[in-house]
Amino acid sequence: MTETTPDFDDVEVRAAIPASHRDLLEAKALAHVATIGPNGEPQNNPVWFGWDGQHLLFSQTTDRQKYKNLQREDRIAVSIVDPTNDFRYLEIRGSVVRVDPDPDLTFINAMAKKYIGQDTYPNHQPGDERVVMVVAPRHTTEMGS
Amino acid sequence: MTETTPDFDDVEVRAAIPASHRDLLEAKALAHVATIGPNGEPQNNPVWFGWDGQHLLFSQTTDRQKYKNLQREDRIAVSIVDPTNDFRYLEIRGSVVRVDPDPDLTFINAMAKKYIGQDTYPNHQPGDERVVMVVAPRHTTEMGS
Repeated sequence: MTETTPDFDDVEVRAAIPASHRDLLEAKALAHVATIGPNGEPQNNPVWFGWDGQHLLFSQTTDRQKYKNLQREDRIAVSIVDPTNDFRYLEIRGSVVRVDPDPDLTFINAMAKKYIGQDTYPNHQPGDERVVMVVAPRHTTEMGS
Repeated sequence: MTETTPDFDDVEVRAAIPASHRDLLEAKALAHVATIGPNGEPQNNPVWFGWDGQHLLFSQTTDRQKYKNLQREDRIAVSIVDPTNDFRYLEIRGSVVRVDPDPDLTFINAMAKKYIGQDTYPNHQPGDERVVMVVAPRHTTEMGS
């Protein structure tokens, strides 16, 4: 369940997400995203996320600190708790391997559909440049069964 | 709403937690705790937490990676979402300023009371050395009102 690509230091793109916790990748759980700030300090906040079968995806505007952090240091750690069971979580550590443009808001609108059942993301601001952060898992930790 | 102590580099111990989000410090929300791993990478996972009026507190066993990380690098970022409103969160960035022993399990039992209504933490293992990580906030970010 691994593959290699030249754009990821020729190492494994995908850690095996444990079968026991793959349902969380489709759940309406929030993903808490930890990045490294400009002074080497951790930063952490929740985002909506998607999963394309290989990568965890989340939307970002290019003026945000998290985006800037990931331009500098692509390593990331994502913590996802089962919304129905606090004792069950999945942590995905990995790297941002790609940043995709989202000029038509296709991805953020899909996230609005997933999380709040709306076809259009309600909080888009004119002038926001939206992108999709594409995270390749390298390592996971988990709790619960 | 700040103070100084000599054991914290003589800088502010307590960032002002915004009044709008102080209720989250008493909520049964999980705290997602980001630390820096041995290779400088972020790590992130959920914990139960308490609040003593100045510090965020969470339990840890001394054999855990997170404990080891914080011995090496005391900076931490904690992400807390309102359990009743995904659009409302508080991030606390700060440092671990103290590690208190918890030999009688007083603190972890209080957390069991808070989160699951039980007087005794049910997952204690013989031989676990429990401590309380004491986090002084330095900076907060938040979303929602």
